[in-house]
Amino acid sequence: MKIKVVESVMKANDAVAEANRRRMRAAGVLAVNIMSAPGSGKTTLLEKTIPALAPLRSAVLVGDLQTSRDAERLGGLAAQTTQINTGRGCHLSAPQVAAGLDSLDLGQVDLLFIENVGNMVCPAAVDLGEHRRVVLLSVPEGDDKVAKYPTLFQPADAILLTKMDLAELLGFDRRRIDDDLAAINTSAVRIELSPRTGLGMDLWLQWLRQEHSRYGTAAG
Amino acid sequence: MKIKVVESVMKANDAVAEANRRRMRAAGVLAVNIMSAPGSGKTTLLEKTIPALAPLRSAVLVGDLQTSRDAERLGGLAAQTTQINTGRGCHLSAPQVAAGLDSLDLGQVDLLFIENVGNMVCPAAVDLGEHRRVVLLSVPEGDDKVAKYPTLFQPADAILLTKMDLAELLGFDRRRIDDDLAAINTSAVRIELSPRTGLGMDLWLQWLRQEHSRYGTAAG
Repeated sequence: MKIKVVESVMKANDAVAEANRRRMRAAGVLAVNIMSAPGSGKTTLLEKTIPALAPLRSAVLVGDLQTSRDAERLGGLAAQTTQINTGRGCHLSAPQVAAGLDSLDLGQVDLLFIENVGNMVCPAAVDLGEHRRVVLLSVPEGDDKVAKYPTLFQPADAILLTKMDLAELLGFDRRRIDDDLAAINTSAVRIELSPRTGLGMDLWLQWLRQEHSRYGTAAG
Repeated sequence: MKIKVVESVMKANDAVAEANRRRMRAAGVLAVNIMSAPGSGKTTLLEKTIPALAPLRSAVLVGDLQTSRDAERLGGLAAQTTQINTGRGCHLSAPQVAAGLDSLDLGQVDLLFIENVGNMVCPAAVDLGEHRRVVLLSVPEGDDKVAKYPTLFQPADAILLTKMDLAELLGFDRRRIDDDLAAINTSAVRIELSPRTGLGMDLWLQWLRQEHSRYGTAAG
């Protein structure tokens, strides 16, 4: 009986996720679900990314248990931003994203960034209706994390190694990341980033523009 | 009905947690539940802590979704070590810890470290039968995390700020941590640590010895 409840909850989520995906597709919005551990630099990355993407117009849905600090950080960037507080919930859900979409003017949006709750386990299993999945791994978290959290990294379309300016100081071994990724995900683009020094930002912005452009073309 | 299921699962967990706590108490074992985000340095801290605690004898239960890498890192320290793989589970549960206790010779243990799954949300709500709760926050995660994850920090007995050698480089504001803690937890000891430089290790070891000693006295 317990399992049945979980299944029906997941089925309900997935139906709403499909509706979200279709709704954004119809509005020409590419939705990117951004996942990582707490403090990997999701908000900092978006602070640098959104202004640099212009003239593409960005919006953000930010998930957090409590506080609206991330939304406040992003609110000054002239992007539409909505904070979703999950209380004790360790991930965003498709119905929460649906409510977030209601708060946005999708006709004025090209890219929607969904900044998930900082967590390497829960968000991985929950479809929000996104079109692309991006996973951040920051260097201080350690080079063993791909092997430890395969459910997060396996379905990622892009994997961003952030705070790379600390790699030498902390003895971070990127070959270990590549070896572990080789076993579970060989299709994702992998970009080394440091928003502090600017390393890799060109590649990341190029990937976003390319995915938006491909998506727009496919939509006809 | 959904809520009923969750409640009965939590009640079953809590009954096993109480049994774990009594069992360890009877064996003179102080159990310490260690929680943090992934990559905050739980295993590194234990690598430095366990040898330094001698003649106190340590054992470790290590929770991870997959891999036995952490147990392998700790296995060479002459401490009894058991890895518990949680699959897709984002926290350890009391029944998993009960099974882990079966694998240990508790008569040869003074302190049991339970290294929880790296996660700032799920483990906070789940009693394992521990006697003390320790939460790590590493400097690269950012100084906004106490406000964002109050359910983790509120019940902590000790809060360890790790990787403090990076604080100046990363502009980490410890006053922000203290201000946010003042609102939710004023009783926890707060220690600044860097296992790399040795900063704070004396205080941390002293706290562990003191808690073990108090606990032994209280047990009569």
